[in-house]
Amino acid sequence: MKKCILITAVCLCSQLVFSQNTDSVVIKKIVDETMTNGAAYENLRKLCKQAGPRLSGSPQFANAVRLVSAMMKEIGADTVYLQQCMVPHWVRGEKEKGQIILFIGKKYDLKLCALGNSVGTGAKGVTANVIEVNSMEQLDKLGTNGVKGKIVFFNFPMNQTYIKSFRAYGESGVSRNRGPALAGKYGAVGAIVRSLAINLNDYPHTGATGYNDSFPKIPAVAISTNDAEYLSKQLKRKNVSKAYFRTMSKMLPDAPGYNVIAEKRGSQFPEEIITVGGHLDSWDLAEGANDDGSGVMQSMEVLRTLKALGIKPKRTIRAVAFANEENGGRGGQKYLDEAKTKNERHIFALESDEGGFTPRGFSLDMTEAQRNKIMQWKNLFYPYGASDIIAGGSGSDVGHLKELGTALAGFTPDSQRYFDIHHAATDVFENVSRRELLLGAANMAALIWLVSEYGL
Amino acid sequence: MKKCILITAVCLCSQLVFSQNTDSVVIKKIVDETMTNGAAYENLRKLCKQAGPRLSGSPQFANAVRLVSAMMKEIGADTVYLQQCMVPHWVRGEKEKGQIILFIGKKYDLKLCALGNSVGTGAKGVTANVIEVNSMEQLDKLGTNGVKGKIVFFNFPMNQTYIKSFRAYGESGVSRNRGPALAGKYGAVGAIVRSLAINLNDYPHTGATGYNDSFPKIPAVAISTNDAEYLSKQLKRKNVSKAYFRTMSKMLPDAPGYNVIAEKRGSQFPEEIITVGGHLDSWDLAEGANDDGSGVMQSMEVLRTLKALGIKPKRTIRAVAFANEENGGRGGQKYLDEAKTKNERHIFALESDEGGFTPRGFSLDMTEAQRNKIMQWKNLFYPYGASDIIAGGSGSDVGHLKELGTALAGFTPDSQRYFDIHHAATDVFENVSRRELLLGAANMAALIWLVSEYGL
Repeated sequence: MKKCILITAVCLCSQLVFSQNTDSVVIKKIVDETMTNGAAYENLRKLCKQAGPRLSGSPQFANAVRLVSAMMKEIGADTVYLQQCMVPHWVRGEKEKGQIILFIGKKYDLKLCALGNSVGTGAKGVTANVIEVNSMEQLDKLGTNGVKGKIVFFNFPMNQTYIKSFRAYGESGVSRNRGPALAGKYGAVGAIVRSLAINLNDYPHTGATGYNDSFPKIPAVAISTNDAEYLSKQLKRKNVSKAYFRTMSKMLPDAPGYNVIAEKRGSQFPEEIITVGGHLDSWDLAEGANDDGSGVMQSMEVLRTLKALGIKPKRTIRAVAFANEENGGRGGQKYLDEAKTKNERHIFALESDEGGFTPRGFSLDMTEAQRNKIMQWKNLFYPYGASDIIAGGSGSDVGHLKELGTALAGFTPDSQRYFDIHHAATDVFENVSRRELLLGAANMAALIWLVSEYGL
Repeated sequence: MKKCILITAVCLCSQLVFSQNTDSVVIKKIVDETMTNGAAYENLRKLCKQAGPRLSGSPQFANAVRLVSAMMKEIGADTVYLQQCMVPHWVRGEKEKGQIILFIGKKYDLKLCALGNSVGTGAKGVTANVIEVNSMEQLDKLGTNGVKGKIVFFNFPMNQTYIKSFRAYGESGVSRNRGPALAGKYGAVGAIVRSLAINLNDYPHTGATGYNDSFPKIPAVAISTNDAEYLSKQLKRKNVSKAYFRTMSKMLPDAPGYNVIAEKRGSQFPEEIITVGGHLDSWDLAEGANDDGSGVMQSMEVLRTLKALGIKPKRTIRAVAFANEENGGRGGQKYLDEAKTKNERHIFALESDEGGFTPRGFSLDMTEAQRNKIMQWKNLFYPYGASDIIAGGSGSDVGHLKELGTALAGFTPDSQRYFDIHHAATDVFENVSRRELLLGAANMAALIWLVSEYGL
C-alpha cells in the first residue's frame, strides 16, 4: 500500500514536472512574442496623446471608447462590444486658485486642485482660519467646537517605510476619501488635503472624495506635498492668518459611459469566462498613462499575443476596458449586472490597475484550493519577474464579481514610482517604460493562458 | 548518537531562526532609516547638477571628487581619503556630424556621437560606401576584399527577449567593443555602430571602443537606434550612395584620477575589510545619474544609515567612488594595487553599477560555502525586494579584487529601463526614482551589515 502511494506520488510528481516543462515552453513563446511585437506601448501612446485625459462623462472618454474599440478589432478579437451604463459626470470648471495669507501680510500661492466629486466654493471662494489635523481621531476630538467655520487641513503624509506603497496609500487615503465629509459634519467651511504623493513635489494629486449625505458637503482641494510641508511649518510658527481657495467644480446629471469588451471564444469550454481588465477612464488632470491606460493596453495585449501565436484558448477570454473606476465604479457594477442577467459563469478575473511598472507578481483573492493551484505555477513566472504570488486583494473593477464566487486576482507591478505620478499631471505616456509595460502584459498573458488551459 | 545529532540539528536550526529574527529587526531599522532619512537622492542631485558629466581627466571629474569627498565627511566616516592614479584622457572635441547621402541626391542627417577612446576623422571627415554587418563572423567572412575603403555599419540590435537586459548588452556589445578594431584590420576607413539601446529612440549612446595595436585605428561613431533602422532600410533598398561623418575626438596624455574613499573602522575585526562601491566617472554626454552616480550614492548611504542608527560594524567598511570605470578601469586596478602594497585583507566587496532602479537581488561571485552562507539570508531580503540572490558576476571595479580571493557581489536592480538611457544624454537625475534608489541602498546596507556582523 505504502509502495503504491509512493509510486502514485512519483508519477503525479513527474507528470507535474513534465507538464510544467511543456508549459514553460509555451510561456517562453508568449513572453518572446509580447516583448518583440507587443502593441501595448504604441497603443498606449495613441490613447494618451489622441484621447488624453478622459474623465467619466467627458467627450475625451467617448473618444477613448472609439479608439479602444478600433484597437480591439485590430488585435483580432472574435467580437468587440460595448456595455452602456450611466456614470457620474463631474466637471472641474474654471481653474482653481488658492492662497495662504500670512500675518506678515505676505500671500503664498498654493498649487492645488479640486478633489474629484467635490462641490465648488462659488465665485467668492472660501476664506477662513486653518486648523491642521493629522488623524481622523484628532478631528473627532476637536469636534464642532474646534472646527466650526474653519478650513480643515488634512496633513497625512504617506508612510515612507512601507515598501508596498499601496499600504501607505490605504492608510493616508482616508484623509481624501472621508476627511471632507467628516469636516463638514463638524461645521468646517472647506477642506485642504495633502496630496497622496509619497515624495515631495509641486504637483497637486486629485482623486475622489466621498461625501456623506447626512452632513453638509463642503468644498475640498488637494495641495502639493511641498505646499503641505510649507503650510504645516507656517501653522506651527503661528504665521498663518487665513487661507483662501476658490473651486468652480460641480456634479452634472449622470451621463452615459461604456465598458469596452473584446472577446475570444473558448474552443472547449466557451461557457467558462475569464476576464482580464483595467479601467479606461482617467482623471481630467492626467493622461492616465499608468492609471490606467497601461492596464487596458496590457489586457488587450493578452489577446493579441495569444492570437499572434495561434493559441486557441480552451476557455473564453475577455479583455475589458472598464468605465468609471475613478469616481463611481459603475462600469464594474454594470459588468456584474450583465453577468447576472445572462447567467454567465465567470471562473477567473484578473485586474491590472497598479501602473505599468516592472512586474513583481500577483495577488490572489480566491479559495485556498484555487490559490494553491496557481501557486504551483510560481516557478513558471520566476524567469519573468512575476513570481511573488501571494494571497491578497484583486482590483475594484473585477472585485464586483466576488458576488458570483469568481476567483479574483490583481497584477502586482513594483510600486515605488506609482505615487509620484498617481492622479497628477505627471501621469503621462513618457513616464511609462516600454519594456516594463510589455513584461507585465507578458506575465498576465501567461497566467490567463494557464487558467484557460487548466481551469481553476 | 543519532539522537545527539538530531538534538544538535534542532539546536542549530532554532539558533538560526532566532538569530534571523533578531537580524530581521535590525534590517527593518536599516530600511526604515534609509527610506525616511536617506541622503542618497539629494546627494545624487548635487552630483548631477553641480558636477554634471564627468569623464576621466575632465575638470568636472575633479569637481565631482571635491563634492563627493565633502559628502563623505558629512555622513560621518572615520576617514576620507583619495587614491591617485593616472587615467586615460579622451576628449570628444567639436560636436560630431554625419550624413547618409542617398542616390536620389537627398541627404539624411545622422544623430551620432564619437565612441569613447576613438580617434577622430580630421577636419575633412570620412566619406565612403557603407556595408552593413550583423555579426562579427560576417565581417570576418567579408574580409579585406569586402571591406577595404568602406565604412562598416555594425547593426547588432539588442535582443528584446532577454528579460535581464545586460545579457543582450553583452551579446550586442561586441559590435562597439571590438567592431571598429576588426573593421580596421580589414582596411575599413570608418565604423558606424548601432547604439546599444534596447528600444528605438533618437539618442546616440556612446561607450568605449577598444582598438587593437596591431591594426589601423579607424574613427568610429554610434548612431541612434532609429537611425540604424533607417540606414539599414535604405541599404536594403540600395538607396545609399555614401555615408559621411566627422569626429574631432582624440586621446590626450594620461591625467590624474582619484578613487574617493570613506572608511568606517571595524570595532572587532578592523583588519577585515568590506568594500561597497560604484564609479564616479561618467560619459561626457550624460549626467551619469544611473551610470553610476546612483551606485556611488548608494554606497555612501550604507555608511550614513549605519552611522545614523548608531550601529558599530564589527568589520571595517569602505564606501568607494572608483575612478575611470568607463574608459580604462584604472581606479579598480589602483584599489587592488594599494590593497596588495598594504597587504590588506579584503573579505567582501559589493558593487552597484547597474543603475538606481528597484532592487531585485544580488549576484554572487565567491566560493560555494560563502554563497550558501549569504543565500541563508535570502528571506531577510524578501520584504525589501532583493531576495533574488544567485551565482553570477560582480562588477568591473571590485572585480579586480578577485586576484586576492575576495568574495565579490553585484547589486542587481531591475534592468528593464537601463538601456533606454545608458551612456546617452537621457541619463539624467530626473530619470532616477527616489524610492527605487533608496530601496536599493537599504538592501545593500542590509547585506553589508550582515557580512560585517558575521563575516564570510
